[in-house]
Amino acid sequence: MALQQVLHQLELATQGQGFTRLDRQINQWLLGTGLWQGMLHLSCLHTSCSLTINENADPRVLNDLADWMADIVPESRRYSHDDEGADDMPAHIRTALTAQTLSLSVDAGQLVLGTWQAVYLWEHRRRPHQRRVLCQFLGEPAAMETTSKTLNQQIQARHDPEAWAADGGIETEVDLLVDQLHDLADT
Amino acid sequence: MALQQVLHQLELATQGQGFTRLDRQINQWLLGTGLWQGMLHLSCLHTSCSLTINENADPRVLNDLADWMADIVPESRRYSHDDEGADDMPAHIRTALTAQTLSLSVDAGQLVLGTWQAVYLWEHRRRPHQRRVLCQFLGEPAAMETTSKTLNQQIQARHDPEAWAADGGIETEVDLLVDQLHDLADT
Amino acid sequence: MALQQVLHQLELATQGQGFTRLDRQINQWLLGTGLWQGMLHLSCLHTSCSLTINENADPRVLNDLADWMADIVPESRRYSHDDEGADDMPAHIRTALTAQTLSLSVDAGQLVLGTWQAVYLWEHRRRPHQRRVLCQFLGEPAAMETTSKTLNQQIQARHDPEAWAADGGIETEVDLLVDQLHDLADT
Repeated sequence: MALQQVLHQLELATQGQGFTRLDRQINQWLLGTGLWQGMLHLSCLHTSCSLTINENADPRVLNDLADWMADIVPESRRYSHDDEGADDMPAHIRTALTAQTLSLSVDAGQLVLGTWQAVYLWEHRRRPHQRRVLCQFLGEPAAMETTSKTLNQQIQARHDPEAWAADGGIETEVDLLVDQLHDLADT
Repeated sequence: MALQQVLHQLELATQGQGFTRLDRQINQWLLGTGLWQGMLHLSCLHTSCSLTINENADPRVLNDLADWMADIVPESRRYSHDDEGADDMPAHIRTALTAQTLSLSVDAGQLVLGTWQAVYLWEHRRRPHQRRVLCQFLGEPAAMETTSKTLNQQIQARHDPEAWAADGGIETEVDLLVDQLHDLADT
Repeated sequence: MALQQVLHQLELATQGQGFTRLDRQINQWLLGTGLWQGMLHLSCLHTSCSLTINENADPRVLNDLADWMADIVPESRRYSHDDEGADDMPAHIRTALTAQTLSLSVDAGQLVLGTWQAVYLWEHRRRPHQRRVLCQFLGEPAAMETTSKTLNQQIQARHDPEAWAADGGIETEVDLLVDQLHDLADT
């Protein structure tokens, strides 16, 4: 079965320095592609924010990481490029020390991550920014038998009878899965 | 010729802080896929160990690298996330500073690395751990003429008449190459 | 349409410590492949220079970045691996802290980068070196209508009537684009 590629630009509003979790919305988007297995390549299109994978459970891990980074690449250092504020040059250096591109495996239509892993955009500037992360997915659809079986299992696992009422009819993840199943039955 | 994808999980037992070389067993596994050219994507599925490429010759390089890292991300620093031991939070930071995913070219069925390069898993925790590295290979088989010619050359280069006796009949790299050659002749 | 892969080795002469911009010559090479969309994977085949993406406008950013790195990974530190000069072990550490592989999206035959981003090889050794960066492109050609329309737009945008005279007849980017357009018309 031939690999297909899909390009998508993730747009994010950051609230100043800190971490924005990306893997959940990436998984949501992956479901919509209808592809099953492949590689997802992320490129952060900026030089003052970056990508990183770290602990998804205890938020103190990210705090400690940011504190360490603030000490090792301090705003107080004398930089020659200082016209855009004291936080600008540290942001460029922190970007160089962390990931600017990440390549992640996708299986069963979802990112393959370790139990404690989450993917973050790390904003290094003090002020809120609009950020863009390019997602390029090279993947292939599953054989039909595999897909409908696994989608059914995912629907059972995620089904929440309250969801439809709670979100006022907005499309849920389960809805997207059911749509995929119907699409498959039609082909 | 269409690209195929193969997923494989490398399982490793680390002995506490230090480097485990990965490229030799990856090359061994690549031979088994029968694919010739493509991209191998490695994802480390943990937040307290990471991937890195460095010197394969003088072991003092890795020692100096580890010593520097121990000084710059010290256990003695005060971290708020400290319930899992003094080495845990430094492990998360050291992971963020090194590679969590690596994408490596494969040609002639083997990783393309520089003369002095080796790929390592870098364990940042003090205690031994079971670690998983996901290998996803997007590659294609060689045209038959290329393959049988190059496999023959590889067999000549690696053939060691003592190997069969020495390893007590366990499959050697040369055996795998010969198998591939037979498979090609059959198709 | 099936993905194709192209391997290319970029050869660079560095002038000692500093940054060599890569994205322009990579874009030039991409044009020659005739492919339109895909992923370009870069591997730096050395352990004392690395890859990084950073600011393409104000050169003081790269200077500040290099100054910070020189302070945090100093030559004056005592290293056990010191036979190849005081700059050698720092080069290995600086390589480990920055990127050794990068995966970049290609669309419309060119790298997709942010407005302020450029891709650099960062030489960490004091003396000039010959360096090799492996470029592996997994991409596909565009549908013919898309290509000829976009190529025409690119030709209009880049056309410089003085170029032919200025470069003494050496092939310009516009020439390459025109060639591609003719190739398409022939198929």
